[in-house]
Amino acid sequence: MSLVKVHITMSVDGYAAGPDQSLEDPLGKGAEALHEWAFATRGWRAQHGQEGGESGVDDEQAVAWSENLGAVLMGRNMFGPVRGPWPDETWRGWWGEDPPYHTPVFVLTHHERAPLEMEGGTTFYFVTDGIESALEQAVAAADGKDITIGGGASTVQQYLRAGLVDELNLHVAPVLLGGGERLFENLDGGPTGLDLVELVASPAAAHFRYARAR
Amino acid sequence: MSLVKVHITMSVDGYAAGPDQSLEDPLGKGAEALHEWAFATRGWRAQHGQEGGESGVDDEQAVAWSENLGAVLMGRNMFGPVRGPWPDETWRGWWGEDPPYHTPVFVLTHHERAPLEMEGGTTFYFVTDGIESALEQAVAAADGKDITIGGGASTVQQYLRAGLVDELNLHVAPVLLGGGERLFENLDGGPTGLDLVELVASPAAAHFRYARAR
Repeated sequence: MSLVKVHITMSVDGYAAGPDQSLEDPLGKGAEALHEWAFATRGWRAQHGQEGGESGVDDEQAVAWSENLGAVLMGRNMFGPVRGPWPDETWRGWWGEDPPYHTPVFVLTHHERAPLEMEGGTTFYFVTDGIESALEQAVAAADGKDITIGGGASTVQQYLRAGLVDELNLHVAPVLLGGGERLFENLDGGPTGLDLVELVASPAAAHFRYARAR
Repeated sequence: MSLVKVHITMSVDGYAAGPDQSLEDPLGKGAEALHEWAFATRGWRAQHGQEGGESGVDDEQAVAWSENLGAVLMGRNMFGPVRGPWPDETWRGWWGEDPPYHTPVFVLTHHERAPLEMEGGTTFYFVTDGIESALEQAVAAADGKDITIGGGASTVQQYLRAGLVDELNLHVAPVLLGGGERLFENLDGGPTGLDLVELVASPAAAHFRYARAR
């Protein structure tokens, strides 16, 4: 059976993205530093077609991102900076022609758009009828493998609030952003029903893993 | 020269105290779990007159709390549940007749009260003329040793906002409280000017230490 996993990085002061997201600053100001723990790893680099990188605590987390991965779910702002109806088909994601997913990717949006087949096995599907429908489509596409919800904060909040997350991988970078998009809000007093299964750290990040209480 | 250190524990979702603080629940609902990492340590137990306890990563942090300690600063809600003017001298802190501080403790309040001398070297002084004055008095009392700001969230925020903190020791417990008193807010885009010097974790907590940028 497919597990629904969240992998998300936040600053230690609670932000999954910095303030003032833009085309130049897709993660918001100062927020590139959030993901430095991953950029240095062998696993992240391999996923992005690069050689080298470090092994160790952070690498194990980076590798877990795509382990047994069958499909990805993401919010529209993670896919790109376009807001409102799609003006045309020009925007094809932040990642170039060979995105690092290599699976179907379901993008939550209010605006219809035809599927977008990229190189390397990634196809973006645009889902306009809600988070449950997107998850059903992702599960069908994953064919028994797992689903990773990649962000951003609002998408993760929606799935946590709906109680649809089996595993929460929370990567906490020692960065103080001072503002941006908070991860832990709009959760109606939750998340609930998640038990800690692992807490490890490198000098670059602390990694908290929670699993649905059995 | 005295260093001004903050030691504070928050839940991974950002709360330094749970919701609904009361006499029965001084840290708010569910928030005892915040401090479990410390309760188990040799250092915390020794400070509280108890034997035994664990050594290791968490113990090093608990020991650091009182290392070279000359005086303590705290907010009034950390001292007790009484709000408004002191009705009488009955309330003598949460800690019994021999509090775990063994130094002068300066309590920020809007309401005057005579100093309260306890056993074991702890005397509570009630400071009504602001955070700078409290810090000056603490520095004078510490006689070259360090100052620890113990909490709560609002007191820590005031000192961070004023740029008066030399070292921030942030202990992050893997607890999801879902509500309560947020640590990182009311900071005007900060804290700024703090560099990470250590990040370590046990299965019970991740410990982030920042020092004022030189």
